[in-house]
Formats: sequence, C-alpha cells, structure tokens
Amino acid sequence: MRFFSDNAARACPEALAAISDANRLDTAYDGDAWSQRLDGALSALFETEVAALWVSTGTAANGLALAALCPPHGAVLCHRDAHIQVDECGAPEFYTHGAKLLLGDGAGAKLAPATVAALAATIRDDVHQMQPAALSITNATEYGLVYTPEETAALGELCRARGLGFHLDGARFANAVARLGCAPADLTWRAGVDALSFGFTKNGGLSAECLVFFRPELAAATRYRRKRAGHLLSKGRYLAAQILAMLEGDVWLRNARAANQAATRLAEAAGGDRLIHAVEANEIFVRVTVEEAAALRARGFDFYDWGLGEARFVTSWDSAGADVDALAAAIRAL
Amino acid sequence: MRFFSDNAARACPEALAAISDANRLDTAYDGDAWSQRLDGALSALFETEVAALWVSTGTAANGLALAALCPPHGAVLCHRDAHIQVDECGAPEFYTHGAKLLLGDGAGAKLAPATVAALAATIRDDVHQMQPAALSITNATEYGLVYTPEETAALGELCRARGLGFHLDGARFANAVARLGCAPADLTWRAGVDALSFGFTKNGGLSAECLVFFRPELAAATRYRRKRAGHLLSKGRYLAAQILAMLEGDVWLRNARAANQAATRLAEAAGGDRLIHAVEANEIFVRVTVEEAAALRARGFDFYDWGLGEARFVTSWDSAGADVDALAAAIRAL
Amino acid sequence: MRFFSDNAARACPEALAAISDANRLDTAYDGDAWSQRLDGALSALFETEVAALWVSTGTAANGLALAALCPPHGAVLCHRDAHIQVDECGAPEFYTHGAKLLLGDGAGAKLAPATVAALAATIRDDVHQMQPAALSITNATEYGLVYTPEETAALGELCRARGLGFHLDGARFANAVARLGCAPADLTWRAGVDALSFGFTKNGGLSAECLVFFRPELAAATRYRRKRAGHLLSKGRYLAAQILAMLEGDVWLRNARAANQAATRLAEAAGGDRLIHAVEANEIFVRVTVEEAAALRARGFDFYDWGLGEARFVTSWDSAGADVDALAAAIRAL
Amino acid sequence: MRFFSDNAARACPEALAAISDANRLDTAYDGDAWSQRLDGALSALFETEVAALWVSTGTAANGLALAALCPPHGAVLCHRDAHIQVDECGAPEFYTHGAKLLLGDGAGAKLAPATVAALAATIRDDVHQMQPAALSITNATEYGLVYTPEETAALGELCRARGLGFHLDGARFANAVARLGCAPADLTWRAGVDALSFGFTKNGGLSAECLVFFRPELAAATRYRRKRAGHLLSKGRYLAAQILAMLEGDVWLRNARAANQAATRLAEAAGGDRLIHAVEANEIFVRVTVEEAAALRARGFDFYDWGLGEARFVTSWDSAGADVDALAAAIRAL
Repeated sequence: MRFFSDNAARACPEALAAISDANRLDTAYDGDAWSQRLDGALSALFETEVAALWVSTGTAANGLALAALCPPHGAVLCHRDAHIQVDECGAPEFYTHGAKLLLGDGAGAKLAPATVAALAATIRDDVHQMQPAALSITNATEYGLVYTPEETAALGELCRARGLGFHLDGARFANAVARLGCAPADLTWRAGVDALSFGFTKNGGLSAECLVFFRPELAAATRYRRKRAGHLLSKGRYLAAQILAMLEGDVWLRNARAANQAATRLAEAAGGDRLIHAVEANEIFVRVTVEEAAALRARGFDFYDWGLGEARFVTSWDSAGADVDALAAAIRAL
Repeated sequence: MRFFSDNAARACPEALAAISDANRLDTAYDGDAWSQRLDGALSALFETEVAALWVSTGTAANGLALAALCPPHGAVLCHRDAHIQVDECGAPEFYTHGAKLLLGDGAGAKLAPATVAALAATIRDDVHQMQPAALSITNATEYGLVYTPEETAALGELCRARGLGFHLDGARFANAVARLGCAPADLTWRAGVDALSFGFTKNGGLSAECLVFFRPELAAATRYRRKRAGHLLSKGRYLAAQILAMLEGDVWLRNARAANQAATRLAEAAGGDRLIHAVEANEIFVRVTVEEAAALRARGFDFYDWGLGEARFVTSWDSAGADVDALAAAIRAL
Repeated sequence: MRFFSDNAARACPEALAAISDANRLDTAYDGDAWSQRLDGALSALFETEVAALWVSTGTAANGLALAALCPPHGAVLCHRDAHIQVDECGAPEFYTHGAKLLLGDGAGAKLAPATVAALAATIRDDVHQMQPAALSITNATEYGLVYTPEETAALGELCRARGLGFHLDGARFANAVARLGCAPADLTWRAGVDALSFGFTKNGGLSAECLVFFRPELAAATRYRRKRAGHLLSKGRYLAAQILAMLEGDVWLRNARAANQAATRLAEAAGGDRLIHAVEANEIFVRVTVEEAAALRARGFDFYDWGLGEARFVTSWDSAGADVDALAAAIRAL
Repeated sequence: MRFFSDNAARACPEALAAISDANRLDTAYDGDAWSQRLDGALSALFETEVAALWVSTGTAANGLALAALCPPHGAVLCHRDAHIQVDECGAPEFYTHGAKLLLGDGAGAKLAPATVAALAATIRDDVHQMQPAALSITNATEYGLVYTPEETAALGELCRARGLGFHLDGARFANAVARLGCAPADLTWRAGVDALSFGFTKNGGLSAECLVFFRPELAAATRYRRKRAGHLLSKGRYLAAQILAMLEGDVWLRNARAANQAATRLAEAAGGDRLIHAVEANEIFVRVTVEEAAALRARGFDFYDWGLGEARFVTSWDSAGADVDALAAAIRAL
C-alpha cells in the first residue's frame, strides 16, 4: 500500500484515453490540433489571456519559468525547503545560467511577506551582489499547506512594489484549488502571479505539466529555451491531449478532491498531537517513533521518513479506499 | 497522406500496450521495474555492458551525450547539416555550457575520416582556440544515407588516435541497422562509438529515446545532468516500458524495415534522375519543379520543401500501403 | 626586431605616467576619480552620451558586449576569420551562455551587407534554429583593412531593418580612425553601432580596454556581468587612468598614426605583388616562400606565419624607425 | 584617512618598479620571460611543484579555482559570509556553470570540521540533490581571523575522506602567513589544499593575483577557461612582474606584517569590549554607536559600517603611521 508519493501514481482513465485518442498522425512538435487548443483552454480556465506551453516535468516548467523571470546575475527568493532548492539538482541554476536562490524560512514551507521583504533587504543594492529578481512559492506547499488568495495577493503586492517576477510552483496546484474552492485566477494572476507551473502528472497524468504565463509575452523567448532544453517533444500532442482531457469536465479538480479527502481521513485518524503540519492538501506528516514506523512498514505501508521521527504519507487521486481505511486504522492504533 | 516526417507518426500498438501495462503504481523516477530492466535489455542487444538512460527527446539525448564527451571549452566536430547544428536551437551549446560545433562537409550529410582530420587540423593547439573533444555523426544521416560498420570504424579509429569522444545520433539508428543487416554492436562500440542516442520516437514510440553509453562510467555524471535538465520524469516507467516493448521481439527492427521498404518503393518510382541522394533508409529527396510540388500537394500529399526544387518525403513504420502506392504512382507520373 | 604583434608592444610613456599618477589612495572598484570621469571623456570623444566601462582585455569587452546584444538562444553573425570566432577560446559562447556564431565570408575579413543578409536568410524563423540577434564586425579587420563610415552605415542600416544589435570589435579602432581621418562617431553610433570594444592595449596601454555603449541603458546589466566575470578590478583607477591619459591630447591617434605609417612603409617596400591584402592599418600580409621566411628570421625579424606562404607583420606605436627601415629593406630585397 | 579597505591601497614601490622594468617588448600572453618564471618562483615558495596562473582579480581566481574543483551539478561548501557568496555577484555560479554554494556558520567566518561535515550530511546521496564537490575557506577570513595549519589540516583531512576538493581564498593569505609565522606550505598543500587564490592586490600590487594549483594537472583545463573568460591578458608580463617582485626578498610578507601591526595597534586601542572579533590579521571590527561612528567620520576617518552598531577598519601595507596613531587615539577616546 503505497503512500510515498503522488508522483508515482497511476494515470487516470481520462489521461490514458486521451493518449489513445491522440494516436493519429498530425503535425509534429506543437503544431498539432491538441497543442493548438492549449492556449484557449487555459485562458478559459483562468479567465484571462494566457500563453500555455506543455512540458514533461515540473522541474522543466520551473526552470523555464525562472529563466523567464530572472537573469543569470539575479536572485530568486524562495523557501529553504522549496522543491526548486532541494529536489531539482540545480535545474533553476541550469536554466537561468547561474542565478542564485536566496532562502527564507517559514512554518510549513510557507513564506510570509515580511520574510520575503527581510530576505530581499539582506541584499545591498550594488554590483557585488546578485539582485533579487523573482519570488517563487509553492502552492500547495511541500508540507501540504495552502496559500489563500489573500496570502498570495499580499506576496504579489510585494513583488509589484519591488519589481520582482512572481512564480508559482503548482505541482499540486489542483490540490490547493480543490481545498480552497476559489477560482484558479484568484490564486494566480489576480494575486500578481506571472508564471505558473501547473502540475498534471502527480494528479493523474502520465507526464504532462503546463507552464502558464499570465504575461503572454514571456512565452516568446521561452519557446526557444524549451526547444533548446530538449523539451519540445516531437509528438507533443500526447502531452497536450492529457492536459485537455483532464481540464475537460474538471477531471483535474475531481482527482485533486479525491486525494485531499483521503489525506483528510488520515489526518483525522492521526489526530492533533501526531500531526506536524496542518493537513490542507494531500500530504500528511506524522510524528512516529522508529518502532512505530517499522511497525507500519511491516504491515505493508510504504512511505518516506522525513527526518528523524517524522513520516510523510501522500495520497493521490487513486488512493484506494481500502488502503486509506487500513492506514487510517493503523495510524489510529499507534 | 502525410510524408513530411516520421517524427509525427502514430505510436505502434506494442508501445501503446506497454503504456497501459505500465499503468501500475511503482517507484518514481527510474527506480521502477521497467527502468531497472533497461541496462540489461540494452546490454543484451549490444552484446556488451552498457549504461542506458531514457529521455523523452532525441535533442535531450544528444545534448546529454555531448556534455559527457566535451567540456565547455571544447569543440564538437560534426557535419554542417547535422541535426545538432541546424535543428536543436543550440541544445549542444546549452548542455555543454558553450562548446562550439565545428562544421565539415560531405555528400548526403556523411563525414569521411579525411574530412574530420582536416577539420581538426584547422585548430591550432593553443589556449586561444577551442580544442576538438568529440565527433558526432548521424546514422542514418539527415539525408537518409547510412554509414557502414567499416565507415564507422574508420571514424572510430580516428577518434581513438586523436583522443576524441565519439557520439552517434541514432534518431534513425533502427533504419540503419535494418538496412545494413548488421549487429547493433557493429555500428557502435565495436566501431569505437562511446555514446548513442538511440531513437524510438520516430520509429513507433510515443516519446521514448534511449541514451546508451558504451563506456558505462560516463553515465554517472549524466544522471545528475538529466535530472538538472528536467528530463528525469517522475513516471519514467512509461518511457522504459515503451523501449522494452519495442526491443522485445525486435519490434524496433520490424518497424524500421517497414519504413525502409516504403521508401525503397518510392525511390524505385522516382528513378535515378529524380533522386538527389541514394535512398538507404526511410527518407527520399526528389527533384521537383515548383509546379510539380504544387501538383503533388493538390493531390493530397504532404511533404517538406527542402530548398528550392527539392522535396523530402519520409516514410514511417505505419506508412499506409495505399498511400505509398498512390505517392509512388504520382511520382512516377511526374 | 619584433613584428609578430602589437599586443606585446611596450606601454607608452603617457600610460605609464598615468599609472604613477593614479597611485594614490582612492575609492575601490570604479568609484574613484578616474573611473568616474570615463563616461564624460568618452561621451565627449564620441559627441553623444555613452556609457563606458573599463575592462582589462578585448576578449572580455567583446564577450560582455555580445552578452548585452544576444540572448543565450540567439546567434551572432560575424566573419569566419573574426577574432571572436578564432582567437578567444569561446569567450562569446561563455559570456552569452551558449549563443552560436554564424560565419560569413569576405575578402580581408570584411563583411558586405549582402553577405550578412544572405547569412541571416539561412536561418528559418522557427524555434528549432537560433535566431540572428546581433552582427559583429572588426575595424580595422583582422587583415588590416578598414570599413569606411559608409560601409559601416550600410551594415548598420541592415541591422536596424532586421532588429539586430551591432557590435564593433575595435581592438584596432584607433588605427581605423587614424587611417580614415573621420570622426569616431562616424564609425560607430552614427553608423548604427550599439557597442564598441575600444582597444587601448595594442595601441600603447598596459592592459586597458574600454567597452563603450552607445545605448547607455545596455550598461546596467553589463555592470553586473563584469563583476561576475571577475573584471571589476578593485584598483580600477589604474585602468581608467591609462584610458584618460591616452585620450588626452589624442595620444591614441598619434600612436595609431605612427603604427599605420610604419606599416605603409613596409607595404611600399613589399610592392603590389607581394601584398596579400591592401595595407590600410598596421598589419601587412606578405607572400613569402619558406626559404624567404627563414631568411628573414635569420636576419632577426620576428613575425607570424599566416598559413602556408604568408607572413604577417604587425607594426605598433613604438616600432623603431631603424627596425622598420631594416625590415623594409629586407622585404624589398626578397 | 582611509581605513575602508585594503583593496584600494596604493601599489608598493617594488610593484611599480616591476611594471617599469617589464616595459620591454616580449612575447604576448604568458609566453614572456616573467610569466615563464612564475611556476618556478611559486614552487620554490611552496616547497613543492605547483602550477601558477596570474589573473587580475581575486574573483577570477576564485571562480577559476572552483570551476576546476566542482562540476556544474555539484556544490561548494563555504561560510555564509564568504566573499564568494556575498561579494562576487555570482562569479562561482558563472565560472562553474551553475554550481550551488551550501552555506555554513561559524564565528568570525571560520568553518569547523564538524560544521562542514554536518553541512555535507544535509545532502542526500541521490540525483535530486547537488552533491558536495568542494570546500572553500578564506584565510585570513572576512572577519580578520586566521586558520592555523592544524585547523586547516583538519579540514583537509575531512576533504580527503569525503572526496572534496579544497580551495583556499587567500585574498589575505599574506596576512595569515605573517601572523602565523609558518611556512606557506603548512597552510596549503601540507594541509590538503588543492588550489589557492593567492592575493597580491590588497597587499601592495596594482592588480595581480596568482592562482596556485597544488595538483598541477588541474591547470590544464584552467588555462582554457582563463582565456575564455578574458583573463589571459596580452601583456601578462606586467602581472607576472608584480608577483615576482613582491615574492623577491619577501616583500609580500613585509607588507602584510606592516598591515597586521597597524591593525594590532588599533585593536589595543579599542580594547576587549569594543572588539567584535579577535584581531589576527589586518581587519578590526569595533562596536560603535551611531553617534560614535559619526564622530569618527567627522574627524576624517573613512570606514565601512558593518551592520548596525559595527564599524570595520582595514589597515594596509601603507597605512600611514600618523593616521594609525590618530585613529588609535580616536578609538581609545570613544
């Protein structure tokens, strides 16, 4: 019973069907009918004109987004535990040609405006230091918390005031939207976000992510960078088709709700004292002893140790009800 | 009736079935059962121990291979019409961090040892010039010709003598092997090749390429570079499964033979005077007037103009017999 | 008697005196009195507002200029024999983060507008190819020819029409101005040049080059790039002082005239048939047999072989009259 | 009376005389007589065979050294206040093509082995994280403390055990050696250091730094990188001559001793409570109120505020006795 990550979950039926459906001869790269519909579909979803580019990983989406917002000699402000800092082997540095990440702290991997302002204030305004050029946050965060529209807008306001680009790593954007019940626009451009890495893979895709620019002019150079990085797949229609299929009928939201609900059930089972972070999306972090962790594993539950005495369980769109029940019972019984 | 490129062809049934089959929960990235079988499957095919990494595009495979063989201050020798030079928007420069491509000439996009030697000899051995570090050839070439094992080995000998790494862009490696009827080893490590970009996408995959290192130690740093470039897909099993499925029962060879045979039929229809290059794989380049090209298009044939007075037709594993017949007849009737 | 390059000549008395004069405690980097006067001095010389940055090599000036004009995924058009292509070990690639140089031909290392236009026309306007972003020429050229104001303006017009940045490698800009007797403005911004690498080292400095932006806003990011590349010397006043001293009283022109005149005397001695290129600055290229070259060396003349049967002699501000006389006589006697 | 930095001090008479002496025609780049003597002179000083390359800034020396020790996908461990992190605008990132600096803490900008080990231990050994490849320390540190030979060796031992390269930023190496009275070898290769940025500029040079490799084979690729970065000056003899002149007769040590003694006098004047760090080299950090700082400035003393309530005074080889006396008295009188 696997709870170690949603990034290994199965593809949902709609995504698989889209693959089959797209298995027709069409134009290569992103000239095909599916890819050509992407801008429109995302613009509709976000209620504004956007430029949307498919890529096959969130790491690529993040790297391309940051390269669009930060020059090689600039700095990106982000949380110390941000995926771009700790889990992408330097993709931001690779794509930006050597920008620096400046790291801030905050509970649950969330950044507060005051923290960002203080972080930016550590940089002298002279040529000896890399000047802050962008802010990057993750919603839902690496610890399963969400930024509300208001919290996001406060950061967006700060970015506007200081001339910072604003990137949102949305590997679990669907989970955040599902949790908050708000419009996707409220968590993005209405709150000042310039670029979103909109994740579909963790949420039931095979390997589809969508880089969405709310300032469409940023896409022009990015199209060259995508090609140059080897991310312009020749049969891109298979990516576009997945995304379109998951947008249609709000499959993406339905999947995210299912994952969130499974996590909520686990959180209720764990109870307050056990929980290290509030459970607002599809991840729960539980205090466990080494013996307890071993006992859970012995019963067939697969999960990550997250530092000493912490276990991370991640639910996904297809977390089987029985597995969740079993894990909930096991956690309750600890 | 589309003959403009094999890179837009459909996925073959085996690849699609592999996708469905791999739609089970497993470990993320390349820790899954399919990815773990890749080294073994490719080692068996090549009759030597190799390290094999899946990526989703040939551009990425080429970029990663060149980065493994050439330092940022080095030079890669290649043909003036090589895909890495004219069709990858600088992926080699991006992945190598600024190496230079040195361009040689040769009919049909083939490089002869004497050409390579002469090209290398243009570089003075001092720090003011980027020193040749690697040779990259394409087999089958961008014009549909093949390098024989002997021709490849002659280049490999030159590389060994001069300390050059040897990269083979095998976007259509299957077509070359199918044509030559030799062992895959004969076109690669036995001929001195260090790294192969082994293409599956043009040959019936959805988006699967395999970077094969015949000096397995080269893979270690490349695994970091792949992650850093955003090419370590979290659900890599879908890529590995495609490759394994196409290796099984020699689907890859069967597909390539079908494409080659279709091209041969077109070549026979065109006859000697019309053909710009010998047809040894799945591409045919035909002399046509502007009026003839228009006439062919009016009859429903889709293809690229390749410079003035030249048309390129590419066949693929699934080129429909009727379409090929129709095109052959139309060409014959010109 | 050394005629192999002006880049090894002595420093002129004015430059040395400036070093001594600047040997006073002042602010570090470019905050000192000398550096602060640079913009003004160059703006006066060029009769327009410029931004001027000292660096210690022409390679750095060129690299920084190109990085300001060309994105990593762009291309720089230049002559096949341009210094940036053959003698800087990839500095343009390093500073631009992987841009590509597209090489054109032309007698005497000069590019004609038609050549540049044809070169640009080889690039398809799609994301698979690196799009031309800048043109770089050298005046005086690597073969000692000059571009006139009219020739430069014709190229500038082309750049404007196609949206290309225009860089002038002026390692021997002084020699060109001295030859043409025109205003420095005529060879630069009035002709559409955006950035000039203005050389002082070959012309009597110790190690001082001045990167001049005729679009001053380009300097902002370049100041960060200069620091990042390790070219913001902490005692920059020694560089600025050299440049100011050589501008004062037109020392730079006087030095260049002396070098040009020495070359003219050698050219007259060689006569028409011996000369491979017209002698318009301070370099002369002479047809010699292997035996003749050996005989010249035996008599104490130091120079470069420039391919088979060619010898390059370079004069400098301090080429001793007796040495020039001796070489002239020796060439005449061949 | 300037105490804001030694990086703006005058050049010492020996360095200036060397410039004049080197003002003779010789071979360009590093082929001249002075440059050719550099390896020998440094090998003698360090009592082992080294490869020595002049560059014009410490930033370039550091960048080149780190590029030799750390791949683009690797990490450099250093102190949070290291010059390479806070004052080089990302030169390490530029030269290494995007490596990451991992930051540790320690009083006085010193790193202890346990800190380094703990920092390295934060990195999981998988491809998702940039693996530690090198350690960089500064001696004397940015706060004027020194690492003893024993402290350095303990770090060197850790590096050897973990396969880390070991870089020493020696912008004030002379001050450290002068303080400790040890052999230069004791602070470098005998303690496991692989590469030293040996500073001469702050210590009385015009603009000369020497990158010393104790594993001479590291210099080969670095020579290309130096050219590529625009740091191979065509009249390199002026740099080499400065370095040689300052090594001769131990001018470098005499200069450093003078600077250290001036700092010691200031430290004695300040007394224990005022001093923020021990004064072991030529920097003193003093607790001052805003009013006290203003008063000192009003009396003509120039220095940096170093955060709130801290003032940094730096002495140099030529700090005038009277100025030091005056400042000592003024500090004493606070």
